[in-house]
Amino acid sequence: LVARMRAFGTTIFAEMSALALRTGSINLGQGFPDTDGPPAMLERAIEAVRGGRNQYPPGPGLPELREAVSEHRKDHYGLLYDPDGEILVTVGATEAIAASILALCEPGDEVIAFEPYYDSYAASVALAGAVLRPVTLRPAEGRFTFDPAELRAAAGPRTRAILVNSPHNPAGTVFTREELSVIAGLCVERDLIAITDEVYEHLTFDGAPHIPLATLPEMRERTVMISSAGKTFSVTGWKTGWICAPRPLVRAVQTVKQFLTFTASAPWQLAVAYGLRHELDWVSGLRDGLQAKRDRLTAGLTAAGFDVYRPAGTYFVQTDIRPLGFTDGLALTRELPDLAGVVAIPTQVFYAHPERGRHFVRFAFCKRDEVIDEAVARLARLG
Amino acid sequence: LVARMRAFGTTIFAEMSALALRTGSINLGQGFPDTDGPPAMLERAIEAVRGGRNQYPPGPGLPELREAVSEHRKDHYGLLYDPDGEILVTVGATEAIAASILALCEPGDEVIAFEPYYDSYAASVALAGAVLRPVTLRPAEGRFTFDPAELRAAAGPRTRAILVNSPHNPAGTVFTREELSVIAGLCVERDLIAITDEVYEHLTFDGAPHIPLATLPEMRERTVMISSAGKTFSVTGWKTGWICAPRPLVRAVQTVKQFLTFTASAPWQLAVAYGLRHELDWVSGLRDGLQAKRDRLTAGLTAAGFDVYRPAGTYFVQTDIRPLGFTDGLALTRELPDLAGVVAIPTQVFYAHPERGRHFVRFAFCKRDEVIDEAVARLARLG
Ligand SMILES: CSCCC(=O)C(=O)O
Ligand SMILES: CSCCC(=O)C(=O)O
Repeated sequence: LVARMRAFGTTIFAEMSALALRTGSINLGQGFPDTDGPPAMLERAIEAVRGGRNQYPPGPGLPELREAVSEHRKDHYGLLYDPDGEILVTVGATEAIAASILALCEPGDEVIAFEPYYDSYAASVALAGAVLRPVTLRPAEGRFTFDPAELRAAAGPRTRAILVNSPHNPAGTVFTREELSVIAGLCVERDLIAITDEVYEHLTFDGAPHIPLATLPEMRERTVMISSAGKTFSVTGWKTGWICAPRPLVRAVQTVKQFLTFTASAPWQLAVAYGLRHELDWVSGLRDGLQAKRDRLTAGLTAAGFDVYRPAGTYFVQTDIRPLGFTDGLALTRELPDLAGVVAIPTQVFYAHPERGRHFVRFAFCKRDEVIDEAVARLARLG
Repeated sequence: LVARMRAFGTTIFAEMSALALRTGSINLGQGFPDTDGPPAMLERAIEAVRGGRNQYPPGPGLPELREAVSEHRKDHYGLLYDPDGEILVTVGATEAIAASILALCEPGDEVIAFEPYYDSYAASVALAGAVLRPVTLRPAEGRFTFDPAELRAAAGPRTRAILVNSPHNPAGTVFTREELSVIAGLCVERDLIAITDEVYEHLTFDGAPHIPLATLPEMRERTVMISSAGKTFSVTGWKTGWICAPRPLVRAVQTVKQFLTFTASAPWQLAVAYGLRHELDWVSGLRDGLQAKRDRLTAGLTAAGFDVYRPAGTYFVQTDIRPLGFTDGLALTRELPDLAGVVAIPTQVFYAHPERGRHFVRFAFCKRDEVIDEAVARLARLG
């Protein structure tokens, strides 16, 4: 293995999902739902398979999907992207992130990201030979946010890009317009590229609005906006994502993307195009259901003795384990199958400064109610 | 776009397939069949979609597919790979190649590849910051082969790996045991890693045997063996591939792969596992049909005035355009839609030394007979 990747082992998701399988534990670790997406959308995939759509799609993606993404961006956010040259279909958001960083960051360039972060961010930055500059999200009044001074201090002469994930996994924060304005101000002042991971864009609660960074003044021109179908339509195994960006940025990302995977699977693209056009009511139902599940899990975890950060979006609840007498989330999650028959994710692995997240553990609530109830009943034994 | 990728534009496949669509030409460029794979295999994919298999599979791939690949390697080649740790499912062979090179080649390392080569080889090497050392395949007695002295001269102190594609796209060569022995000898002598692209393993003609490099003495331990479902089962749009290699090599490649795409699509994996177990007779039929199509196209191209290299494997015929009075394949293929309503691939883009391939043009024959006949009739007007 090349030197720059030696700090990275198996992703925590693979490790913890394998642990869940091996021990027969309830898996509240990796974020995937246990109920599939809209039936009519699944039928569109089946029609595509039966209907001779199983060969290479065009490199940038099928026009049907690029057009549906373009309309979705316009209808939801007032953002205009030309399906022909400003939208690129990818193998999920993970490929979009990797290709964006590999295409835009030279060795030695610096990339700002908010820690904790989805682990592929640091790996993609390392793969590009670039340097990650973490800015820590800290709890304040029950939610995770950043200190604007710390963000500004992270930007230097070699800073090239900032990775912005909102709704934020694993912290559950949905950035407010004020927070986004601070980020946008820095991007404009320092001429940074923003790479936004918005895969939970439809999964916000209590009416919290998702605001794309690209909608802020002078930001569309410098933003690579990333999303995907997996979380929105409960088909995480379809691996279908997309970027929206100005033409030169799309061209750069596509140059790398075409050599990572050539294209994304064809049949899903037709189904997801249908989903974006016809299944957003289903998505609203998913969101309302998830809000109830969030409340169910946060109540249960609170009763079990955890300190709980109530998320404004995503699938995930961040907890502090110290009230239960534990101090190290990695040690705890490795024992949790034995202690309670439950698998969770130790948030510290998403930090450049692991000590800042040592006492946090993340639980997923994208599961059937009876699964959440059983997990909570088991976790109650910890106290 | 980062400096190391600036030499790479849109892949020739994307350019030429877009040209075919725009001009309504017959597309004998990009290699994808116009008939789908085995119906029972497609039904397995449909069952997976209906049956709740739409979420993230495990990072290394579904056990069903890893086991089927393991059995296939044993039954066909006598190669033993443990499904648990020696096989990794990827998003097609392209991702397998990119992840292998990114995982194994440090900046400044050298990688040998036979030119002409599938264009992602050079791009992946550049992305890793490594250096490509091309060894030219030249026509000799009607087939393309290499000069062992030239191969040996390409290896130096910084050489880390050799990319070996057999059956070879675009040259159509199936390397003989003698050729493979020369390559293996160099790998063992210089302690090189072999990365083998064997996606056309089942598509060889006139009984030419496909011999995996890993079956040669002392080679299994140093070979990353890559294949995929797209060409074998006529589902190029499913993007499902795999590597087989010793544990430490798989672990290295997986470390990179998990951050490029996380996992490959779940439902195809179940269908391809079924294909590998139950549809190899269908594949024999595909191969026999392709052999007849090869003969059909080579006869037609010869009659039209091309010098034709009859391939021993793959989907592709390599031709020399000089007998027709043309000298530049790139110029010709860009005009070919106007001249004849046909799209082909200029082989020179697959060379580090384009002048060595200037007069070669590649035609695909994985098309229905009437499509081949119509293309040939149109090309006859060129003479
Ligand atoms: C590879 S898992 C993708 C993100 C997610 O689902 C998680 O954080 O659990
Ligand atoms: C990206 S196309 C993959 C290889 C192939 O099919 C071709 O060479 O045409």
